[in-house]
Amino acid sequence: MSFSFSVVLVWLDLAGVFFFAVSGSLLAAKKQFDIVGSLMLASVVSLGGGVIRDIIINAGPPAALTNPVYLAPPLVATVLVYFLFSGLQRFTSLLILFDAGGLALFCITGTLKALAEGMQPIAAALLGIATAVGGGLLRDITANEVPRLFDPKDIYALPAFAGAGLTVLLSVSGTFNAVTGSAVAAVVFAFRIIAWRRHWHVPLAVRGWHRLGPDAS
Amino acid sequence: MSFSFSVVLVWLDLAGVFFFAVSGSLLAAKKQFDIVGSLMLASVVSLGGGVIRDIIINAGPPAALTNPVYLAPPLVATVLVYFLFSGLQRFTSLLILFDAGGLALFCITGTLKALAEGMQPIAAALLGIATAVGGGLLRDITANEVPRLFDPKDIYALPAFAGAGLTVLLSVSGTFNAVTGSAVAAVVFAFRIIAWRRHWHVPLAVRGWHRLGPDAS
Amino acid sequence: MSFSFSVVLVWLDLAGVFFFAVSGSLLAAKKQFDIVGSLMLASVVSLGGGVIRDIIINAGPPAALTNPVYLAPPLVATVLVYFLFSGLQRFTSLLILFDAGGLALFCITGTLKALAEGMQPIAAALLGIATAVGGGLLRDITANEVPRLFDPKDIYALPAFAGAGLTVLLSVSGTFNAVTGSAVAAVVFAFRIIAWRRHWHVPLAVRGWHRLGPDAS
Repeated sequence: MSFSFSVVLVWLDLAGVFFFAVSGSLLAAKKQFDIVGSLMLASVVSLGGGVIRDIIINAGPPAALTNPVYLAPPLVATVLVYFLFSGLQRFTSLLILFDAGGLALFCITGTLKALAEGMQPIAAALLGIATAVGGGLLRDITANEVPRLFDPKDIYALPAFAGAGLTVLLSVSGTFNAVTGSAVAAVVFAFRIIAWRRHWHVPLAVRGWHRLGPDAS
Repeated sequence: MSFSFSVVLVWLDLAGVFFFAVSGSLLAAKKQFDIVGSLMLASVVSLGGGVIRDIIINAGPPAALTNPVYLAPPLVATVLVYFLFSGLQRFTSLLILFDAGGLALFCITGTLKALAEGMQPIAAALLGIATAVGGGLLRDITANEVPRLFDPKDIYALPAFAGAGLTVLLSVSGTFNAVTGSAVAAVVFAFRIIAWRRHWHVPLAVRGWHRLGPDAS
Repeated sequence: MSFSFSVVLVWLDLAGVFFFAVSGSLLAAKKQFDIVGSLMLASVVSLGGGVIRDIIINAGPPAALTNPVYLAPPLVATVLVYFLFSGLQRFTSLLILFDAGGLALFCITGTLKALAEGMQPIAAALLGIATAVGGGLLRDITANEVPRLFDPKDIYALPAFAGAGLTVLLSVSGTFNAVTGSAVAAVVFAFRIIAWRRHWHVPLAVRGWHRLGPDAS
């Protein structure tokens, strides 16, 4: 991996960290946490997925701890949400937009980092998916919510599957570059947002059940 | 550990992964998650305990990621639950049966893997217990439920304690084999299921409290 | 680090483990878990933060597993809570006192362990904070509660920030010793308890919001 490309990768990763951090601070705002809780939730969601990935890859202490630049996005997100979103009521819509941005970038950067560490393509794609959905899962679990990942009226994981799969295909075929990478990010983001706006959904876990019927015992 | 035995160990581990995966898909069905959420929850519960164990043992990337055969059980479980359990109402009973199967196998395979990595007997038994109860704990936490591990009207962890302890005793004394191993798995499974059917329970965390009395402040 | 000092460090760490273990057993009592659930929750909260720290530092299997002395605090805490707290109603106050004791010791010992492993000062302070707040976060997540860390009517993380920061400053300047270390622990404990008793709080995540107003959508 050339020097210039790995610099681009760090910037994309930082952008994903920032988007997820804003989603964490927005959830903290929605749940009436205080500003320290906002910083902690922003840190968990934005750095948690990458820390888990780095631990699984087993490539030394996680970048989030050894490179102080990774501390900036949660701090900036907390301050931005504190000053800019007062009086605002549409937290959920904004949360989904920023979360989708983080998802689109992390399924790419997570997959690329795993490939760079020598993981096999399938394992790299799985780690990319885990990085992308892991942060949001940690955010919702930490805040004691049913994770958005499991909302049956929405599509969340499939865009990450698509993004990680496309990233592996492009990398293995030697055609991953700034243009194709941006296209993948755009596809993942658009897939996620259109699915949410159009109320797309996939079948329930059991065939033939009515959606939102009574809870079985 | 001889070649043939370690092949048996992988098969037992895969069977445990499959049982836990079915329990994850059943919980997804009970909670009305969709089929992608079913696959994600099946993956978390069936592979999560082993990934945590492999990370703690620090023996390189987890088998669940490097060996693609571990991806089959969650996929098969998701498809099975989708097609076979429509119209079925008794999710909880089935969930407990499959969960008990996973518990019985994981407290053995988790302990054996830790011993094979050179852990001391007590540490190996603790890792076996963590592997066995960790997957179910992750499943219930991820789905935002109070973990079954903590249900005071049920016995969950003690069978895993017994299974991991017996596995260590048999291994250290050189008498662990297919027959004694199967006997341990049968004992753990029977202990778990009989305790559940007969409503066995252990004392509450505080002496003299009435069961299910008012919540203290 | 001299031999005698590292012995002191292990004792302080064990004291922190014990305080957190009692807080886990008290939460188990409050939530009417049984005595096995009390042991499991005490183990998760008291050993979980340190295990996560040791995994991130990547310094071999966690001390909590390889050194059996770490198993004593959760056992002792479970037995103590079982026998001593029957009839007692004020679980929450006691839980906060013991939790504050664990917080005060772990933000110091976690930071010192990270420094001893060669982490940079900022990374070491972050790991100390993560060790200190991680155990309580795991306790509340595992018991399916909104983590105390996020309670907007209370101050939880700031004392850990202060303790980890002071520990780094004292260590880097070569003035960390038993006296200054005890003073840091006392400051963190007093800060946490006074903030709780006096209902100190910090601003909410969004400027200008009324505390405890209606939940935004």
